[in-house]
Amino acid sequence: MTDRLRCGSRVSSYRLGELAERIGARMLGDPDVIIDRVAALDAAGPGCIAFLSNRRYRPYLATTQADAVILAPEFADACPVSALVLDNPYLGYARVATLLSPTVETTPCIASSAVVDASATVAPDAAVGAHCVIEADARIGAGTSLGAGSFVGQGASIGPHGRVAARVVLCRGVHVGARAIIHPGVVVGADGFGIANDDGIWVKIPQFGGVRIGDDVEIGANTTIDRGALEDTVIEDGVKLDNLIQIGHNVHVGAHTAIAACAAIGGSARIGRRCTIAGAVSIAGHLEIADDVHLTATSAVPNTIREAGVYSSGMPIQENRAWRRNVARLRQLDEMARRLRTIERKLLGQS
Amino acid sequence: MTDRLRCGSRVSSYRLGELAERIGARMLGDPDVIIDRVAALDAAGPGCIAFLSNRRYRPYLATTQADAVILAPEFADACPVSALVLDNPYLGYARVATLLSPTVETTPCIASSAVVDASATVAPDAAVGAHCVIEADARIGAGTSLGAGSFVGQGASIGPHGRVAARVVLCRGVHVGARAIIHPGVVVGADGFGIANDDGIWVKIPQFGGVRIGDDVEIGANTTIDRGALEDTVIEDGVKLDNLIQIGHNVHVGAHTAIAACAAIGGSARIGRRCTIAGAVSIAGHLEIADDVHLTATSAVPNTIREAGVYSSGMPIQENRAWRRNVARLRQLDEMARRLRTIERKLLGQS
Amino acid sequence: MTDRLRCGSRVSSYRLGELAERIGARMLGDPDVIIDRVAALDAAGPGCIAFLSNRRYRPYLATTQADAVILAPEFADACPVSALVLDNPYLGYARVATLLSPTVETTPCIASSAVVDASATVAPDAAVGAHCVIEADARIGAGTSLGAGSFVGQGASIGPHGRVAARVVLCRGVHVGARAIIHPGVVVGADGFGIANDDGIWVKIPQFGGVRIGDDVEIGANTTIDRGALEDTVIEDGVKLDNLIQIGHNVHVGAHTAIAACAAIGGSARIGRRCTIAGAVSIAGHLEIADDVHLTATSAVPNTIREAGVYSSGMPIQENRAWRRNVARLRQLDEMARRLRTIERKLLGQS
Repeated sequence: MTDRLRCGSRVSSYRLGELAERIGARMLGDPDVIIDRVAALDAAGPGCIAFLSNRRYRPYLATTQADAVILAPEFADACPVSALVLDNPYLGYARVATLLSPTVETTPCIASSAVVDASATVAPDAAVGAHCVIEADARIGAGTSLGAGSFVGQGASIGPHGRVAARVVLCRGVHVGARAIIHPGVVVGADGFGIANDDGIWVKIPQFGGVRIGDDVEIGANTTIDRGALEDTVIEDGVKLDNLIQIGHNVHVGAHTAIAACAAIGGSARIGRRCTIAGAVSIAGHLEIADDVHLTATSAVPNTIREAGVYSSGMPIQENRAWRRNVARLRQLDEMARRLRTIERKLLGQS
Repeated sequence: MTDRLRCGSRVSSYRLGELAERIGARMLGDPDVIIDRVAALDAAGPGCIAFLSNRRYRPYLATTQADAVILAPEFADACPVSALVLDNPYLGYARVATLLSPTVETTPCIASSAVVDASATVAPDAAVGAHCVIEADARIGAGTSLGAGSFVGQGASIGPHGRVAARVVLCRGVHVGARAIIHPGVVVGADGFGIANDDGIWVKIPQFGGVRIGDDVEIGANTTIDRGALEDTVIEDGVKLDNLIQIGHNVHVGAHTAIAACAAIGGSARIGRRCTIAGAVSIAGHLEIADDVHLTATSAVPNTIREAGVYSSGMPIQENRAWRRNVARLRQLDEMARRLRTIERKLLGQS
Repeated sequence: MTDRLRCGSRVSSYRLGELAERIGARMLGDPDVIIDRVAALDAAGPGCIAFLSNRRYRPYLATTQADAVILAPEFADACPVSALVLDNPYLGYARVATLLSPTVETTPCIASSAVVDASATVAPDAAVGAHCVIEADARIGAGTSLGAGSFVGQGASIGPHGRVAARVVLCRGVHVGARAIIHPGVVVGADGFGIANDDGIWVKIPQFGGVRIGDDVEIGANTTIDRGALEDTVIEDGVKLDNLIQIGHNVHVGAHTAIAACAAIGGSARIGRRCTIAGAVSIAGHLEIADDVHLTATSAVPNTIREAGVYSSGMPIQENRAWRRNVARLRQLDEMARRLRTIERKLLGQS
């Protein structure tokens, strides 16, 4: 491995043979070609390694200008250049991209414009950006960086080696584990939406709980995770959250579950481990979702799901006029079913 | 009532008999037991009061370790400990929790890092957090606190006893009433989405209106409320908004309406009083919704609703293969309805 | 044209005849009436010009107190006051409103609380608000203003005459063109949601791409646009984005496309030119949408759309009990279709 400096960040390059070894792939071709970046099949040039994991991009393989391609065994014969062959080429690509990723150098320091309470604990090698605010008794772990203008409330903590972007809000008392990646605009620990009705007037229910976030969690831009009403909202280890997601109070998300953008999860929902929840999914509150459940995009979940599997709802688009006609019929569906039953009785003598 | 200091905030405790009196409940058991916090039925211990309002949690009543439980008359006999009995136990819980809620002490002051225009009016007992920006002619009411990094634009105002969290944006000229609670990341008064098409090119329509927000309004994290095009966007008294909600320009939300997370409300929609709008509901623009309308989760509202009631739409999940089959049929629904009619004519001689 | 100062901003007034000329409208009535603001038909008074573009507001025409109305030829005869007549009155209104819009005077300066890296380039007539942070090698174009607390990351740039509101985040290396309007809370350039699964554990895929945004683009409050995985996410010229929209990594949005609030666009989607995408639309990743496609509110797009046209999906609300009955039948739809086929075979002898 060779390091050089480019744009203030350290860039790496590897011999192809070394990459094969590092990711556990079978190598075809020249082990000595030097690879210093990843690129798409149709945009790659010398020094690049590309990958083929989505069949859609298969046509670009024959003409790629990459020096090597990461791919599955079935495509190995068709590859016109060197190859790293393994069963999960997308994972191989993730690993190679990580190895080739420039390491952003964060200089440990506390910006002079940051406001840090005297009782807060900031690890000596942490980095606190301009205009950050760290309140009393908060704790920032070793090697963790806080982007400009981020806020860590009273008694809140974030573990070691975290990467918090600009303008993140960690409210009072929330706890975030190790190696967190938190993108701009995220809000963790705002009050849950707890209200009780008193003869037409809403009375606010104080939210006493906190938020506990495990290790290796990533949280996308402008996502919100509310604090619990009585107990904590919990995000277990390895959970990955995309942008603009709502996690209601007292939700529990099991380890290694991934949730795509714009999903809305109602209060006190309990979601299993290793689930995948696609974009714009809506999950009601006070229900359970088993481990290994996969919800496709725009699914609406009103009730508990007890068994692992793939679940879906939602209506794919049609040309507008056809949709109008079908939707009109949808409103008559129960009546249609009754009419069908009547005919069956007459015709088939069914009771 | 006894006050003591814990973690810099004042914590309260009450005799059970006093709580009963305060919330207007019938008391069963020992009036002298001292209660100092609320807890869930299955997590409560000595000093705790729990509540039972959702039938789902009924099984935990028999074994609760709480000193008392707030519940409805139907469960009074089954309660193994002291009880506060009233018709709306959830409301009773809200009131008790509020009494037991630690009062956060906000020290009135303007942080030295805040930038406050000389022409702005900040009440002497208001608190302005670190890195706040308050522009010309803005007004901050008595006892109101602004969290770190919040922004109050030119001529904007917020009434007395408000609680504005970190990183809130109140744009130029917006008005917020008394006792507002505004969570982090909220944006009030960005331009509405007004564009006119000039032969394929969009021309921006200036947004001259403002935003007027009544008293006792709560606004959840990262929610956005746009300013009006010509007149103001209006949120009446007592409205409660959850996280990540979009309120378009010139929307009017009637008093004491509650809206759950991720709802999207199109421009110039006029929503009645005392409505409840559940999560991920979508409401088109330029329509009216009557008072006391209740929309269940994921409902899509394309037209005016003239009568109070409960309305729904959306398709709950199914196992993926069943959904695929049903959705394919959905696209043929109009054709199915015609075929059914043909059969009815043949078989039943209907015209 | 006459200018005067009101509230620190310059307000304009025009003779009606001059407005007619400027927007290319036919004038009916008095060319010398002085117009200094726009107002709704039913709220207008002396000095006001109103407009009628939505049939819904037709009833207010007869009693309007406006001095003039912008309207289509079909309503000219019914107008009780002076009129500007043109085929697209909404566009006429946009143009008149722009002429009458007070010009906000931005004083070019860098706030003393802003933190600007020595290697950043800020145009001499740009305005940098309080508590802004501009990192190394970033560039701020001529006449562009940055609202309080905005962040421009390392190597990022924004072109001339842009208007960036408070608390906007432009991450490292993103590029924004000329005349951009970016509302509060927007995040451009957070990492895309790229993860690969390693036997139950998610491995992050580094996001090497950037974001390129063309000229004349407007981005609504709290909208998020992710950086690309390998290549850039691209928003072409003249695109208009509303609030709380998610644009995934490597998305390409064609010129002059408009997207309403709460739309979610999956990674690597390629959206055509001059499309309109209504509120709460959900578009899957890795697909293409042709030019001039119009998607109505709440549509879910799972596959490529090859032809221009209007497309829809989603189920409008019904009274809750009717919806429950119909939704129950929806789950039996495939079975119903089979039963219908059986009857057709018996009755009509179809094979």
